Amino acid sequence: MNAHQPDPVQGLIEQLRGWLGERLSTRPAEREQHGRGESWHATQPPDAVCYLETTEEVARVVKACAALGVAVIPFGAGTSLEGHVGALRGGICIDLSRMNQVLAVRPDDLDVTVQAGVTRQQLNIELRATGLFFPIDPGGESTLGGMAATRASGTNAVRYGTMRENVLNLTVVTASGEIIRTARRARKSAAGYDLTRLFVGSEGTLGVITEVTLRLYGVPEVTQAAVCTFPSVAAAVSTVVQVIQYGIPVARVELLDARTVMAVNRFSHLGLEEAPTLFFEFSGAPAAVAEQVEQAQALAEGNGAAGFVAAADAEARNRLWKARHNVHYAFQAMRPNGKVWSTDVCVPISALTECIAQTEQDILQASFFMSMVGHVGDGNFHLGLVVDPSNPAELLEAEAINERLVHRAIALDGTATGEHGIGSGKIKFMALEHGAAVATMQAIKQALDPQGIMNPGKVLPG
Amino acid sequence: MNAHQPDPVQGLIEQLRGWLGERLSTRPAEREQHGRGESWHATQPPDAVCYLETTEEVARVVKACAALGVAVIPFGAGTSLEGHVGALRGGICIDLSRMNQVLAVRPDDLDVTVQAGVTRQQLNIELRATGLFFPIDPGGESTLGGMAATRASGTNAVRYGTMRENVLNLTVVTASGEIIRTARRARKSAAGYDLTRLFVGSEGTLGVITEVTLRLYGVPEVTQAAVCTFPSVAAAVSTVVQVIQYGIPVARVELLDARTVMAVNRFSHLGLEEAPTLFFEFSGAPAAVAEQVEQAQALAEGNGAAGFVAAADAEARNRLWKARHNVHYAFQAMRPNGKVWSTDVCVPISALTECIAQTEQDILQASFFMSMVGHVGDGNFHLGLVVDPSNPAELLEAEAINERLVHRAIALDGTATGEHGIGSGKIKFMALEHGAAVATMQAIKQALDPQGIMNPGKVLPG
Repeated sequence: MNAHQPDPVQGLIEQLRGWLGERLSTRPAEREQHGRGESWHATQPPDAVCYLETTEEVARVVKACAALGVAVIPFGAGTSLEGHVGALRGGICIDLSRMNQVLAVRPDDLDVTVQAGVTRQQLNIELRATGLFFPIDPGGESTLGGMAATRASGTNAVRYGTMRENVLNLTVVTASGEIIRTARRARKSAAGYDLTRLFVGSEGTLGVITEVTLRLYGVPEVTQAAVCTFPSVAAAVSTVVQVIQYGIPVARVELLDARTVMAVNRFSHLGLEEAPTLFFEFSGAPAAVAEQVEQAQALAEGNGAAGFVAAADAEARNRLWKARHNVHYAFQAMRPNGKVWSTDVCVPISALTECIAQTEQDILQASFFMSMVGHVGDGNFHLGLVVDPSNPAELLEAEAINERLVHRAIALDGTATGEHGIGSGKIKFMALEHGAAVATMQAIKQALDPQGIMNPGKVLPG
Repeated sequence: MNAHQPDPVQGLIEQLRGWLGERLSTRPAEREQHGRGESWHATQPPDAVCYLETTEEVARVVKACAALGVAVIPFGAGTSLEGHVGALRGGICIDLSRMNQVLAVRPDDLDVTVQAGVTRQQLNIELRATGLFFPIDPGGESTLGGMAATRASGTNAVRYGTMRENVLNLTVVTASGEIIRTARRARKSAAGYDLTRLFVGSEGTLGVITEVTLRLYGVPEVTQAAVCTFPSVAAAVSTVVQVIQYGIPVARVELLDARTVMAVNRFSHLGLEEAPTLFFEFSGAPAAVAEQVEQAQALAEGNGAAGFVAAADAEARNRLWKARHNVHYAFQAMRPNGKVWSTDVCVPISALTECIAQTEQDILQASFFMSMVGHVGDGNFHLGLVVDPSNPAELLEAEAINERLVHRAIALDGTATGEHGIGSGKIKFMALEHGAAVATMQAIKQALDPQGIMNPGKVLPG
């Protein structure tokens, strides 16, 4: 890969300014804001930020960067957690937030095509009148392009899958500035290599995603939430494992440990009992939902659950789930001058109890506030480590906890990250997780981006 | 790509015979049987057939082929329909049917690891005692390795997805003879490029799949089938479109036109009314199933359905679905000296009525028996054209019908094939369907198989 060369970049910036005028910025504050996500990673500002409005503009800018071997970093909403947007070798940041048009809603096909900068919240507001919704819900106000690029998921994945299952096709600008469409709009196809799934999760290292076609779902007729507490995290996890193994089609099931409940109570002004807790959601036709609630309650109570409360009341339900979605900010609020080092792993569900039990030891021993929350129906859970980023000892301690967590997950046939992605933060675990397959990924990267200009320093080692 | 060179192949065969003894065959009948699938495509025998038993053996044979630039053609059960296994440039066929061990069943994780040569029927028999099953069911007695390689689906895809959604990871021997594992066993991961989905559907052109880890599902508590007839194909299709749009979670919904019902009645000794017909299946917890049957019946009757019969009787249900699975052989039996040219397309569901209506004109005008059957809940349907392969006029007519079908589907934003794959039979439509993205696929092929030895002449033009 080319090293960052300052001279061509300055010439390029002048060229791009000629095309874009005010839509190109080299102001330090704007560059810095585009050089960081929401986690602890150091800010790495790009040389310039371009606010682009069409796929053709993106293609033109990428072609110009390719001609000079200058790095290209796509940027959505900056909600990433593993250092995905840092300009490690300088270069041009392509900000896609102005590509915020919903291009086509097709209720009959249960799909929608959006520009990459549309956020999931914006989409669901625009869908309200249709009776449809898009379920994938990572924590932040993320863009759908960014969510595709990082293979995001969230609390609904146990029922609806992740971005992997819910992207029908993408429009992508390749590293040479060509515009391709990865697939057509049919629900399934056996026609050639699955480029859609290759670009989903490629984190901007193979091309820039500019449009996304997504599956939509009917808003369920009935939705019911339930909350209950357990005598231990292990008892809560056992309940979830049984719910999944019995095939109860829960819409969501989230685990909060006692510390997370405490942080959520403080931040969202709730009065939940500070004990290991499961948040459930059930949805569907009325008789089916009633059946599911009854089955899940029986399993929970068999594991010692107390206070199983099922609430069909939409307002109470929304308050609960909003609090869950704000958990990153609740962690942050535990230490106003701290920064949340957010990490996640995912293991086969039979290994979840063991993985969490070992991890609890680290939580108890940490010298800073640290807590757990998880999409446990998928075997996926998160740790929030609230560190002082100016304290090297804390950063070292956090790094060691993260290393132990990832090694533990991989030893249990799990993955270094269920949904946050690799970015620059988890590259060092790629060889441990994938072994010889890393060379296959590198060969693909080399083939599709021979100059190494697309979001360099992310996903792949070397 | 290297042309087929006779001399190195003969030397290679002697080398492989030294390793494999009786497990290498050059007998003409065996070579011919390995040079064809189940559709009309001409037989193209390989130079030799190797019956391999372990991943390491596959790696050793591929390394030997790579050293001499000799083609490698993986072979499962030979049930393919688009000329996937023909040795267009000679070479070594790797028959995986003796790799038929179920390596690990993990009921707690709802997954299983099998060698590539295990068939779906064998797997489901071995799973019986566990209360679990694997739902993906293409027509033939296919191997799971072959099903992964062709991104197979079948009647259950509307509920459970295709091989795309149901493979957790693969063990693959690459074109250079390295052994890689495409992912770990977690349900979801955001760690690097999605190699699993890249190899699923690559039809042996990027490597040889030797092991497959699959998702399993609990056998539903209750399963209920239903059959009804319609005044027209359009009325049946409208019913299906409404069922999908209303979000009724049908387990299966299949359309048979009147001719297909006639062929099925003859072959499977049934007495179904010879009219456009839907076969439904509903499954789940009892109250949910009763609710679904009622909703589907109301929609069907709103479209003029007659004789909606819901049968919980397992024997009657199995007879019906066995007849559906044998439809390829029922078409074949309509003309004992004929051969079935089987083709499929898939379109967005809103375009299904139009696509099928136009296609019916071709069915009415064909000079040979021709009929339709479809996994219409996905927008996917099949035509069986029963041609005399020694009659050039019929082959030309069939080719023209197939061309019109594919052009029609692609014009409606659909795909040239929903589940049969590209093989050699549909390569000519790749550029029409994928445009500039074909070059991206070719770059990946070149990167992962620079000599072009893996199943040459399949999937990609040029």
